Amino acid sequence: MNDITFIKGGVTAAQGFLAAGIHCGIRKNKAKRDLALILADRPCAAAAVYTTNIVKAAPIYLTMEHLKNGQARAILANSGNANACTSGGMEAAKKCVDTIAAALGLKPEDIIVNSTGVIGQPLPVDTIIKAVPELVNSLGASSEPAAEAIMTIDTTSKSVAVQCRISGKTVTIGGIAKGSGMIHPNMATMLAFITTDCAISPSLLQEALQASVNRTYNRISVDGDTSTNDMTAILASGIAGNAQIIEKGIDYNAFLAALDAVNLHLAKEIAKDGEGATKLITCCVKGAVLEEAAAQLAKSVISSSLVKSAMFGADANWGRVLCAMGYSGVRFEPSSVDIAFSSDFGHIEVCKKGQGLVFNEDLAKNILSQSEVTIDINLHEGSAIACAYGCDLTYDYVKINGDYRT
Amino acid sequence: MNDITFIKGGVTAAQGFLAAGIHCGIRKNKAKRDLALILADRPCAAAAVYTTNIVKAAPIYLTMEHLKNGQARAILANSGNANACTSGGMEAAKKCVDTIAAALGLKPEDIIVNSTGVIGQPLPVDTIIKAVPELVNSLGASSEPAAEAIMTIDTTSKSVAVQCRISGKTVTIGGIAKGSGMIHPNMATMLAFITTDCAISPSLLQEALQASVNRTYNRISVDGDTSTNDMTAILASGIAGNAQIIEKGIDYNAFLAALDAVNLHLAKEIAKDGEGATKLITCCVKGAVLEEAAAQLAKSVISSSLVKSAMFGADANWGRVLCAMGYSGVRFEPSSVDIAFSSDFGHIEVCKKGQGLVFNEDLAKNILSQSEVTIDINLHEGSAIACAYGCDLTYDYVKINGDYRT
Repeated sequence: MNDITFIKGGVTAAQGFLAAGIHCGIRKNKAKRDLALILADRPCAAAAVYTTNIVKAAPIYLTMEHLKNGQARAILANSGNANACTSGGMEAAKKCVDTIAAALGLKPEDIIVNSTGVIGQPLPVDTIIKAVPELVNSLGASSEPAAEAIMTIDTTSKSVAVQCRISGKTVTIGGIAKGSGMIHPNMATMLAFITTDCAISPSLLQEALQASVNRTYNRISVDGDTSTNDMTAILASGIAGNAQIIEKGIDYNAFLAALDAVNLHLAKEIAKDGEGATKLITCCVKGAVLEEAAAQLAKSVISSSLVKSAMFGADANWGRVLCAMGYSGVRFEPSSVDIAFSSDFGHIEVCKKGQGLVFNEDLAKNILSQSEVTIDINLHEGSAIACAYGCDLTYDYVKINGDYRT
Repeated sequence: MNDITFIKGGVTAAQGFLAAGIHCGIRKNKAKRDLALILADRPCAAAAVYTTNIVKAAPIYLTMEHLKNGQARAILANSGNANACTSGGMEAAKKCVDTIAAALGLKPEDIIVNSTGVIGQPLPVDTIIKAVPELVNSLGASSEPAAEAIMTIDTTSKSVAVQCRISGKTVTIGGIAKGSGMIHPNMATMLAFITTDCAISPSLLQEALQASVNRTYNRISVDGDTSTNDMTAILASGIAGNAQIIEKGIDYNAFLAALDAVNLHLAKEIAKDGEGATKLITCCVKGAVLEEAAAQLAKSVISSSLVKSAMFGADANWGRVLCAMGYSGVRFEPSSVDIAFSSDFGHIEVCKKGQGLVFNEDLAKNILSQSEVTIDINLHEGSAIACAYGCDLTYDYVKINGDYRT
C-alpha cells in the first residue's frame, strides 16, 4: 500500500503551477475576491466532470469544447455571477477566455472556464476583461487567493494537498474547492480544481477523475440534484517525472488513491460548510451486497431534512434514519438493520434488528452534540460498505436562503 | 359536466357514518384528542392506498390483510405513537382492533387501523383499550373530534365534503386528513379517511382511489418519499341509492371527479399546513407532452429547498425554478421555457425562452408576499398540464423538527 502524506498548500503544491485571485468588481464588497486563475507552465493532460443538470451554464459548454483534445493550461473562474440562463452567456464566456488567452500567450482552447453565483443575470464581461492584466500580474505560488476568489456563500476557503510515490518519484496532487453542503448539497454550485505533477494520459486522467468524483463529491449529494455550473477539473503537468501512467495497474491505483484523498477531504469540507451548519454528519452503511446500494442508502439518510434537523437538535431519532432508508429506492430487510450513533464522545447502539433499544438518552445527547457525528448502519446482508457526508439543518439555513438574490 | 358542490362537514357528511375523537392518554396533553373512530351503520365497500416505504408500520400490514375482501365497517386511528419499528407492533395493533371490534359487535376483519406519531416506541395498548368504551359512547354526527384526534404537528384540522349527482341521486363524499407539507411532504405521515354513500363495487372504488391519490396527495410530494404509516382509506356505504357503479362510464367519472375534489382540497390543506409554513405554493407546468412529465417537473420545483426558501423571502429567484426543473429527471428544452409568478396581487413574467426578463422587482415582491402563490411554467412542447402543491421553507420548520422526539 502506497503511503499518502498530507502536506500544506493547494492548487500550487504540485510542480509547475501558479495561481491568482483578485477582486475585480463583480461583487460589490471590495474585500471579497471574485476572479481566480490557475496557470500551468506547460501543456497539461486535462479532464473534467460536469453537472448532470439539463440546464447547463454557458462556460460548461465552452469548457467541454475546449477539453475535447484532453489538454489545457489554465483555469479561469469567477464568483458573484453564474453566467447561466442569459441570452449572451456563451459570447460572454468566450470574450473572457479570449482575453485571458491573449494575455497569457495561449490559445482559447487551452482555457478551462467556469462561473458561480446568481443565475439569470448577464455576466459583467467588461469588469472581468479590465481586470485581466492585474489578474495575470498577481500570479504567484500561493493557492489561497484563488481558493478565496471562487467562494460564494462558503464560510471558509477549501484547500488540500497530498503526496505519494509513483514509480519511484514523489507525485503531488493539490486542489481547491467551493461549495456548501445544503439540504440537497449539489443544488448549490460545487467547483473543484485539482492540479498534479503526475505524468498520466488524458484518457486515464478522465477515468480516474470520474471514479473519484463518484466516491467523493457525489457522496455528499442526492444523484441528479446538481446545479447549472457544477464542475470538477484537473490539470496534470507530468513534471514529477514518473513513468507516464498509460494503463491501469499499480501506478494508476496509487494515483487514484491519492486523488481520492484530495477529493474526499474537499468533499467533507464542503459537507461541513453547509449553509448555517453546525456539524459534519457522516453516514456509513455496511453489510450491503453492493457498494452502490450502500451509497444510495447513506445518501438518502444524510439528505433527509428530518434526520438533519434531528442532528441539529442532538436528538437520537433513529426512526427517521430507518424511514429515510425505506424511501431510498434500495431494497433491504428492515428487520435486519442495526443503527448506532458515534462521535468523539462515544458510541451508542439505538436500534437492533430494526427495533428500538432502550438507551441512555443523556449519553446519546452528548454523542450527538459533537461537531462530527457518524450514523453507523449495518444491513447484515453482505460485505460492501459506503459512506456519505452531510451536515445538520439549522435555523440559519433558511435565513441564508430566504433572500439570497436581492 | 356534473356539478360538484362543497358542503359543510367531513367524514360524517355522507349517509350512514358516525365519528368520534377523544383523549385517551397516549399524549400527555389532556387537551389533545388522540384516538379516533369512524363507524358505518352497515357493511361498506372499502379500499385503501398505502405508503410505498419499505419500512411499513404494523397497522398498515394488518389493514392490508383486513381489506383483502374489499369490505370494512370502521376505521380506528390514534395519534402520538406510530406503532412502527417495535417488536410487538403487530400484536399491539391486533389487540386494539379485537377490542374495538368486540365493542362494536363486528369482526376484526371489518376494521381499518392506523397510527401516527413517534416511531420506535411501543404502542400503549392498555391506554387505548381502556378508552374503547368511552370512544364508542362518544360516536356522533360531528366529524371534527375525529379530525382533531388524528392531528400530530398539524396546526389545523382538515375536513371537507362535497355532493354530486350520480344516476339521478345525490351522492355525498367527505373526508378528514392529517399531514404537514414538509420539505419532502410525505416524509411526515399523511392520513386521509374518506366516507361516501355512493354505491360502487370494491374493485372500482380501489381503482378510483388510486387514480385520485396519484393526482392529489402524490402531487404534494416527491415520489417515494413516504413515511412508514401513510394511508388513504375510503368506505362506501351505498345508501345514496344510485345504481351501483360496476363499470367505467359517466357514473364512474362523476364519482371520480367528486373524489378528486375532496382529495385535492385535503391535499392543498396539507401542503399549506407545512411545518412553519407561511404560504401555499402551487407550481403549474403546462405545454408538456405528457402529464406525468409535467407532474414530475412541478414536484421537483415545489420540493426544492432553494425555491421554498426564496418563496419565504418573496424573492423572484426564477433561476432556482429552472435549476430544479433541470435535475428533475425529465428531458425538456431549457431555451423554450417561460416562467411567471402570480397571486391575488397580480401576475409577472420573469423568464422567457429560458432567459431572464427585466421585471419590476417591487411588483414581484408584492406578488410573492401573498399567502397563496403560483409558479407558472410553460414548456411549449405539447398540451399536457399538471400542478403540484407545496409550502415555503421557514425558520420555524427547523425549530419544529430539531427536537421533535424528546
